[in-house]
Amino acid sequence: MPSVKNAETLVAKLSEIAMRRYSMIEEGDRVLVAVSGGKDSMTLAHDLAMKRKWWPVRYEMLALHIVTDFAPESNQRQLADLLGSWNIPHVALEVPVIGRLKEGRAMNCYWCATQRRTELIRYALAEGFTKIALGHHLDDIVETLFMNMLYKGEMSGMAPMVRYVKYPLAVIRPLALCDETQIRAFVEEKGFGASTSVCPYDADSRRKVMRAKLRELTGGSIELKRNIFDSMSHVNPEYLA
Amino acid sequence: MPSVKNAETLVAKLSEIAMRRYSMIEEGDRVLVAVSGGKDSMTLAHDLAMKRKWWPVRYEMLALHIVTDFAPESNQRQLADLLGSWNIPHVALEVPVIGRLKEGRAMNCYWCATQRRTELIRYALAEGFTKIALGHHLDDIVETLFMNMLYKGEMSGMAPMVRYVKYPLAVIRPLALCDETQIRAFVEEKGFGASTSVCPYDADSRRKVMRAKLRELTGGSIELKRNIFDSMSHVNPEYLA
Repeated sequence: MPSVKNAETLVAKLSEIAMRRYSMIEEGDRVLVAVSGGKDSMTLAHDLAMKRKWWPVRYEMLALHIVTDFAPESNQRQLADLLGSWNIPHVALEVPVIGRLKEGRAMNCYWCATQRRTELIRYALAEGFTKIALGHHLDDIVETLFMNMLYKGEMSGMAPMVRYVKYPLAVIRPLALCDETQIRAFVEEKGFGASTSVCPYDADSRRKVMRAKLRELTGGSIELKRNIFDSMSHVNPEYLA
Repeated sequence: MPSVKNAETLVAKLSEIAMRRYSMIEEGDRVLVAVSGGKDSMTLAHDLAMKRKWWPVRYEMLALHIVTDFAPESNQRQLADLLGSWNIPHVALEVPVIGRLKEGRAMNCYWCATQRRTELIRYALAEGFTKIALGHHLDDIVETLFMNMLYKGEMSGMAPMVRYVKYPLAVIRPLALCDETQIRAFVEEKGFGASTSVCPYDADSRRKVMRAKLRELTGGSIELKRNIFDSMSHVNPEYLA
């Protein structure tokens, strides 16, 4: 395979494996792709748009970009151009994350994430989408597992596919098997790397610390991270507490 | 509480919590305590002997020391004296770990552990014991979980209590909630610290590396290690893979 397309091929293959393994797409699915403009969600949008051309099961897709009141300008123009060039229809949805804060409450990641998620679900249900696709990758998933184990005393993370019980809707994470370095390589290969939006509140220092610690733990080995990922589906209750 | 008895009280309390939480001892139990002469198993033997005087449920105990053909002298004299001084009956059992190796096979931790475990179970069943008590502590358990996650892609570890399906026998780990530093402090407090036997084949370098990595991950925090331990009994399958 030509080395110039190496990263794209690898990411496409890994997402294909994930999508097949977890049966992420069903006939007639309407997929709402959450795009921030960062490398992960843009990789996801591009990958789903490419797959749509040949994937055995038909699906529709729309990219949804949530615009918040703390980064109203962000990278909308660039985002729109890029999505347009891939023929991905897209909409922007304004969510006043700060505006919804109760008086005296400070902005935080949890609040912001909850607001975004709520709007995403609301939009998906109102517009008849059946899947919400998120750009989380292997490192995000392993990090979340470790955050929950170390700080919450819980084994839980981000499953590659989660069906809502209350709604005819599921969250899918097609990049679940992709290492962040592979996504970074893909984005560089395609040359749309620089648009990662910077959150002015980006202070989830615990997550950053965990990312660094995990790098020490695994030595950056994708194989070891995959093993950790695999362990999430190989739970031996009788050998746990 | 007088500080001179601090470590003993702490270890005794933590093992009490573990023994109650996991219902480790039942009326009339005959407990076979595996003692190597190292700090962990000696702490366990001492703790179980002390608890026997007041524990609401009666149990018998015997300390079993496995003598291998690669460390035949070890610390038997010291071990016997110590156990004797605590009024713990004890026996030594010879297991030719090297002698049983198939020709051309090298000695390794897995082989040795399997041989010891087999003999322990055989002895327990033959002599009518109902519980095998092992000295594994919090760090051992967390380390094992991480070894299995990173190298085997499996979430499994050492449960505080495991019942054999085939035998009327269970393995219990009363020190499951004790941090190694707490055991070390106890052993120093009691002044029987120096007898840790050194295995001439002690080369489980992956475990040592994991121990060091876990120290980095948790910063040595007992609270974080406890959270990891707790996560083993708070598994959310729908948020895993």
